Amino acid sequence: MKRIYMDHSATTAVDPLVMDAMLPYFTERFGNASSLHSFGQEAAEALSDSRSMVAESIGAREEEIIFTSGGTESDNIALQGVLSREAGKRQHIITSVIEHPAVLNTCSFLESAGHEVTYVPVNSEGIVDLGEVERAVRDNTVLISIMHANNEIGTIQPVKEIAGIAKENDLYLHTDAVQSVGKIPVDVNGLGVDMLSISSHKIHGPKGIGALYVREGITLDPVIFGGGHERGLRPGTENIPGIVGLAKAVSLARERLGADSAHMGKLRDSLISNVFGTISDVRLNGHPKQRLPNNANFSFKHVEGESLLMMLDMAGIAVSTGSACSSRSLHSSHVLTSIGLEPDYIHGSVRVSLGRENTMDEVDHLTGVLQETVAKLRQISSPGQC
Amino acid sequence: MKRIYMDHSATTAVDPLVMDAMLPYFTERFGNASSLHSFGQEAAEALSDSRSMVAESIGAREEEIIFTSGGTESDNIALQGVLSREAGKRQHIITSVIEHPAVLNTCSFLESAGHEVTYVPVNSEGIVDLGEVERAVRDNTVLISIMHANNEIGTIQPVKEIAGIAKENDLYLHTDAVQSVGKIPVDVNGLGVDMLSISSHKIHGPKGIGALYVREGITLDPVIFGGGHERGLRPGTENIPGIVGLAKAVSLARERLGADSAHMGKLRDSLISNVFGTISDVRLNGHPKQRLPNNANFSFKHVEGESLLMMLDMAGIAVSTGSACSSRSLHSSHVLTSIGLEPDYIHGSVRVSLGRENTMDEVDHLTGVLQETVAKLRQISSPGQC
Ligand SMILES: Cc1ncc(COP(=O)(O)O)c(C=O)c1O
Ligand SMILES: Cc1ncc(COP(=O)(O)O)c(C=O)c1O
Repeated sequence: MKRIYMDHSATTAVDPLVMDAMLPYFTERFGNASSLHSFGQEAAEALSDSRSMVAESIGAREEEIIFTSGGTESDNIALQGVLSREAGKRQHIITSVIEHPAVLNTCSFLESAGHEVTYVPVNSEGIVDLGEVERAVRDNTVLISIMHANNEIGTIQPVKEIAGIAKENDLYLHTDAVQSVGKIPVDVNGLGVDMLSISSHKIHGPKGIGALYVREGITLDPVIFGGGHERGLRPGTENIPGIVGLAKAVSLARERLGADSAHMGKLRDSLISNVFGTISDVRLNGHPKQRLPNNANFSFKHVEGESLLMMLDMAGIAVSTGSACSSRSLHSSHVLTSIGLEPDYIHGSVRVSLGRENTMDEVDHLTGVLQETVAKLRQISSPGQC
Repeated sequence: MKRIYMDHSATTAVDPLVMDAMLPYFTERFGNASSLHSFGQEAAEALSDSRSMVAESIGAREEEIIFTSGGTESDNIALQGVLSREAGKRQHIITSVIEHPAVLNTCSFLESAGHEVTYVPVNSEGIVDLGEVERAVRDNTVLISIMHANNEIGTIQPVKEIAGIAKENDLYLHTDAVQSVGKIPVDVNGLGVDMLSISSHKIHGPKGIGALYVREGITLDPVIFGGGHERGLRPGTENIPGIVGLAKAVSLARERLGADSAHMGKLRDSLISNVFGTISDVRLNGHPKQRLPNNANFSFKHVEGESLLMMLDMAGIAVSTGSACSSRSLHSSHVLTSIGLEPDYIHGSVRVSLGRENTMDEVDHLTGVLQETVAKLRQISSPGQC
């Protein structure tokens, strides 16, 4: 049975072009970019070229890109880095209730270290209220961190408008763009952000590598310490194959953005209308329009999401319940709770996240399997049975 | 011209067997180990198998291994993790003056955060004095961090004896084994350590991945925050290809240890006797016996190490001046300063670090080139010239 992968928000396969770009750096051009000899020079050149490629793809400058081990570390360096730098001065952060755990748990840590955090709510469609952001600003606010697009329900936040509030109040603005790169345009100046997190494995690059954009003139404190790599902000021997792969993945994502998002958007719209046409008592979580072209997050009344996922998996289709980005946990999603989803629906949620290689046939197949499976599960759980 | 690589302490090429092990995890078995479907299961199995392999290779248990982004992060989690956990209680660390920057700069950071650090000196052969370690212990000491083998001069520290001091005084003991794995036996119980850092790219594994051994029963605070991966100690989507590569590299290093260290030791001894037989005014830095089998660190009187490195590079031979693990810097090595190397010698140092693929022919070739080049450089710098 050919398996169908529709969980691209969790992770993606490395693109063959990315693989080709990386391969020589494992075995032939394997030098340490800090070494002065020719092996080191090759690595240093690859590092610098990759930095340019990433910068160019998001409208930044080469010296504004820091390589990290992934989205989680990028988020941590942005948040911890600003707050540590401002120690004893401005202590307050504004973020949203639907951020990824990489931001939320960093905020909890910062609270335990004496900083203050306001978690701005979202409306029932999962969009942050600008008025709430504005009202949250205090004298000692230093940073706003609001994600570009949500990993569970795909809602796209009004980052550009939030940048206006940040600018007016002289605050730093960070956005987690881990899910948006490759799906919607991401340009640091267009968005008006000061810091922006990227993760490679969500865009057909390798795992274990990411980047943080830091606008020129902003100085952050490091989170880990060692050799002076990455302008002292992120020490450790540079992961050259990973960095080359990330650069290729980001630039491919940029190149293919128009075609990919049109293709995925068409599949997604078809999926949504099929599901609503064939299954009753279903909700589409998130905003109907202001959402990633590859995300459809459904809740089915009186269905166990985990059972649904397992039955789809047995039918060869991979989707997710809630978010697979955090560890296996039985808590109901903080995002679905935040949008006020009714209790009858909250446990019956699946996230379908499409990729560039998914086809309309696969979407049609998914719809059929969903229809059958939801019916089956509802029969089992219906009170008349025993 | 076939280039000769003799800078294996800086980094190594990925072994073909490691490459083969990793490859399927980039493109076919690419799942997120937190996902519940079959793609996720494949990744979770690879993660668990890899953890067992790493554990077994160093005499640890599976649940005692945490995967990190490299040696630098492992060192940081060990040191910051213990000190953060003990906040408000025991505040004092003992380390040595010749540690890698990943330890030394983490210690500086901890000092700036109010902790106390004693930097124990080494003797002229680069070995830590056990009496000094013992005398450094205070009522509020919590941790000793002494490297297993030094990255510049290859000296092997008496970690087992230091473990005795740690045990007697109820202290944690961390050792940075980044340079020793694959060159000398590394067994956590044999050494008696509580924490031990490993880096993959020094042992023919991929860059950007490492591990930290944490003895059962020890709880550390994390340095970055996010999803609950790696028992909450190191969040971020697991780098499965990197982890699979690290596991293969560590287990190959273990398997090949006897043959590799005998081979490298023979080359190293031959190199040292050739150099001393053909070049005058030269020092071998570090201990004559208690050193890694692949390390020879020479200082040539009245020679500029950087010029020597460059001329060797032009002759197709890659070696290092001081340490390439930290960034390009013009400071003279803190390690060579610590062993009291005379000023006439300190700038004329090169580190030759051999690998399993180096041959006796290459060593002979290096000796010839060294002899010529040192003579040339001494002629240029001799006061009679203008
Ligand atoms: C929005 C968002 N931020 C951050 C992350 C963390 O990225 P990484 O897995 O590369 O650490 C993820 C996914 O895991 C994500 O979806
Ligand atoms: C002794 C030692 N510790 C730590 C490190 C850092 O390891 P990594 O480059 O994997 O961060 C190195 C080399 O860079 C090293 O030689």
